[in-house]
Amino acid sequence: MILDKKEYPLGDVRRHLETGPIVLVTSVAGGRPNIMTMGWHMMMQFEPALFGCYIWEGNRSHAMIRSARECAINIPTVDLIDAVVAIGNSHAEDGDKFAATGLSAIAARHVTAPLIGECYASFECRLYDDSLIDDYGLFIWEIVGAHVADIEAPRTLHYRGQGRLMVAGDEIDLSTRFRPENL
Amino acid sequence: MILDKKEYPLGDVRRHLETGPIVLVTSVAGGRPNIMTMGWHMMMQFEPALFGCYIWEGNRSHAMIRSARECAINIPTVDLIDAVVAIGNSHAEDGDKFAATGLSAIAARHVTAPLIGECYASFECRLYDDSLIDDYGLFIWEIVGAHVADIEAPRTLHYRGQGRLMVAGDEIDLSTRFRPENL
Repeated sequence: MILDKKEYPLGDVRRHLETGPIVLVTSVAGGRPNIMTMGWHMMMQFEPALFGCYIWEGNRSHAMIRSARECAINIPTVDLIDAVVAIGNSHAEDGDKFAATGLSAIAARHVTAPLIGECYASFECRLYDDSLIDDYGLFIWEIVGAHVADIEAPRTLHYRGQGRLMVAGDEIDLSTRFRPENL
Repeated sequence: MILDKKEYPLGDVRRHLETGPIVLVTSVAGGRPNIMTMGWHMMMQFEPALFGCYIWEGNRSHAMIRSARECAINIPTVDLIDAVVAIGNSHAEDGDKFAATGLSAIAARHVTAPLIGECYASFECRLYDDSLIDDYGLFIWEIVGAHVADIEAPRTLHYRGQGRLMVAGDEIDLSTRFRPENL
């Protein structure tokens, strides 16, 4: 199901990425869209919103994303687990993964990479710093557009290795117990 | 309760960090132990095991950890939530956080930073690359020792911002559905 995502404040994207979910990275290279799964990533700055991710040089998506210098980071929830597994098992040259998985490519506003309609959150990214790719496979992205559906406690997927995934559980609201400046 | 942690293979630490839990970073500077909470981190390499984390320059622990060039990354579970909140609300100069929270400092094997006895996993780290600290607040650590208690599906904490924490939920074992080389 294509979710109704709304524009979202860039300064708040950490609320969806800091928990460490598996994300689906979309990109376009040579007119071909691609999707890869990714779990090694972190927030790096609030404003502008910087997001770092590791992409192994041996992954065939590495060169495509590096050359495109744009991508979208899409966050799937547990209902998309079959698509996540299919993409994790596929290779960049396996053909159109949107067609293979039934996921919907939605035009982004700021980048050529498509957004995944069924993911509850999608972030448009431009390559901000490519200087750490050779040494560390580290891509530093600036998030330039954010789209999030209004879901209270999204059941995101978190990879534990060895084919085991943790599904996001309950949320605890401790907002009254933190000093405001520490939230 | 102090958990019985065992030596753990360094190449497998991603199984505990890739899910994106809140971690407690311990360090010693000037003979004083310190603990800080941290949520912006990622795995960066399997072998040697590299782990990156962002520490804001304005955080008073930043200079202590940078000067110590060693730390331990400890992963708390939901039963330690009061200690996590207390540490998140405190400052580096607030005094002995082990005493204040009742957490136990356990001697590490390879670094001066103490391990937290009540955390189910602790990783000893040496600063591997300090060249990105000035530009990005990014510390790249080599994990040189790993200690993990045998807990099936640890109920780790994941920060959603605004004082809201997600507690790790159920685990799904899809190991038979992945190609072995993709696990």
